[in-house]
Amino acid sequence: MAVYTDISDEDLARLLAGFGLSEPLAFKGIAEGIQNSNFLLETAEGRFILTVYERDVRAEELPYFLGLLTWLADQGFPSARPVAGKDGGYLQSIDGKPVALVEFLPGLSVRRPTVAHCREAGVGLAWLHQAGLGYGERRANDLGQASWAGLFAGHAADAEALKPGLAATIEADLAHLAAHWPGDLPGGVIHADFFPDNVFFREGRFAAAIDFYFACDDALAYDLAICLNAWCFESDGSFNVTAAAAMIAGYESRRPLSPAERAALPILAHGAAMRFFLTRLADWGATPAGALVRPKDPMEYERKLAVHRAGLVVVA
Amino acid sequence: MAVYTDISDEDLARLLAGFGLSEPLAFKGIAEGIQNSNFLLETAEGRFILTVYERDVRAEELPYFLGLLTWLADQGFPSARPVAGKDGGYLQSIDGKPVALVEFLPGLSVRRPTVAHCREAGVGLAWLHQAGLGYGERRANDLGQASWAGLFAGHAADAEALKPGLAATIEADLAHLAAHWPGDLPGGVIHADFFPDNVFFREGRFAAAIDFYFACDDALAYDLAICLNAWCFESDGSFNVTAAAAMIAGYESRRPLSPAERAALPILAHGAAMRFFLTRLADWGATPAGALVRPKDPMEYERKLAVHRAGLVVVA
Repeated sequence: MAVYTDISDEDLARLLAGFGLSEPLAFKGIAEGIQNSNFLLETAEGRFILTVYERDVRAEELPYFLGLLTWLADQGFPSARPVAGKDGGYLQSIDGKPVALVEFLPGLSVRRPTVAHCREAGVGLAWLHQAGLGYGERRANDLGQASWAGLFAGHAADAEALKPGLAATIEADLAHLAAHWPGDLPGGVIHADFFPDNVFFREGRFAAAIDFYFACDDALAYDLAICLNAWCFESDGSFNVTAAAAMIAGYESRRPLSPAERAALPILAHGAAMRFFLTRLADWGATPAGALVRPKDPMEYERKLAVHRAGLVVVA
Repeated sequence: MAVYTDISDEDLARLLAGFGLSEPLAFKGIAEGIQNSNFLLETAEGRFILTVYERDVRAEELPYFLGLLTWLADQGFPSARPVAGKDGGYLQSIDGKPVALVEFLPGLSVRRPTVAHCREAGVGLAWLHQAGLGYGERRANDLGQASWAGLFAGHAADAEALKPGLAATIEADLAHLAAHWPGDLPGGVIHADFFPDNVFFREGRFAAAIDFYFACDDALAYDLAICLNAWCFESDGSFNVTAAAAMIAGYESRRPLSPAERAALPILAHGAAMRFFLTRLADWGATPAGALVRPKDPMEYERKLAVHRAGLVVVA
């Protein structure tokens, strides 16, 4: 929810010329994105989202993400197609920051998904996994299971501050996950952040996915496990098995899970909860009091971890 | 640049039903407005801006503003037409806050107006003044000349903190303005905040005006004086007489000034600079350190006051 970069008339004209577009008809900063500035742009050629990549973005990785978006759009998947510049590349720049332009996608995310939304999200995720097959670029999951012990190192005190005894619990989780993490599941391009705010619906059907800046190669079923955590917990912390079954059924309507993938879902969901707990824990400790952006509460994911730890998640 | 109110799926559906609209196709918070939350909304019926009126808004005055927007649109002036609800009124509510919906207007404001933009802004302002004639509602200018001494009361120390000796200078200005303020100029509906960020252009021509929440009854030439201050100063603090002459010529292409109005422009511009200096001074003192919204610098308008004080503004 931020616009960090102020774009002058001259810079906007230069950017649009670089993308081969005519004069702007409308240009508004939009309240989306934590690490980027996003603008809704309209020209005679259509409507677009212009993104200025701010701090924390590894510029060398942008071609992977923009290439993926192009690949997915070429496969007919509803993600935003990047606009190529007159120089053939997808990136222009302003004040030394990379800038990309993608098509505007209509559609609306939902705040509180219903069981029907969970099913549709599953359909969309499987579609994404199928569409990603064949994308030629590779990006390792730098937030995958192998990274978690390192992510936790140095944050034991932060965990203790959240709840006495939590550090030891997390250490035990990490050991359990390391010992049982499945290594041989079908892999491919995963979204890795397919949360409700990154999924659009129209008339109740999956319409589009956005925000691919965590996309990488990993087990496809792990992406589904991330979604089970993100979509199927109630606000009171309970896991909605009906929603989870609907999400899995939606997924399998396009891509059936193998027996090994299905059997791995509980540990994958446990690990997926760990991944979001750990990055939230790191952000929590790193955010100064009074900062503009309030970090997300790591305890939301500790409560999900507790559910997985107790083995309460039954995925039929 | 803010979105203060989070709108749930259910609240959005209820609001749209109240406005007689079908399902949302897109809904995005936009980074506009200091006191309101604004959202870009798209439905099958068209594109709209949904505004949630936050703190500091006097709800009893909203019908004046929304009625004015309707009146202006009925006269063919390019301002955003409010959408009437199924109950016939223009206001719905969310969490006890008033909510209005207006048409989306294409067009782009400019950051650094050229002389040609100043001329077009003058054309647009005169058009607005003509279109406003006949609007049946009245709203006194609560930030008009009569209010300034009261606005300054209690802020002498803030002025001294900005620049030693400034409080006495402002007191002398206020006395001068009170003694010479013209009381018999042609009046009508003024925008009162016709700054560059509230004026849209298309292909270099005036396209629309937005943000009428300071509109009121006052001398029409005073509105032009506000614009001279807002549009015709260079970033180095100098007054661009070429831009001012172009703005006045643009204005007079639609509504010629009377000799009395023309003669009054220097004192009106002096007073207009005082009005913005005073409200910025009050906001400056009232904003706690570290607040999310950075107040605008009152000294920008003190520098404009100094130019007017010296009688440097030559309006031929």
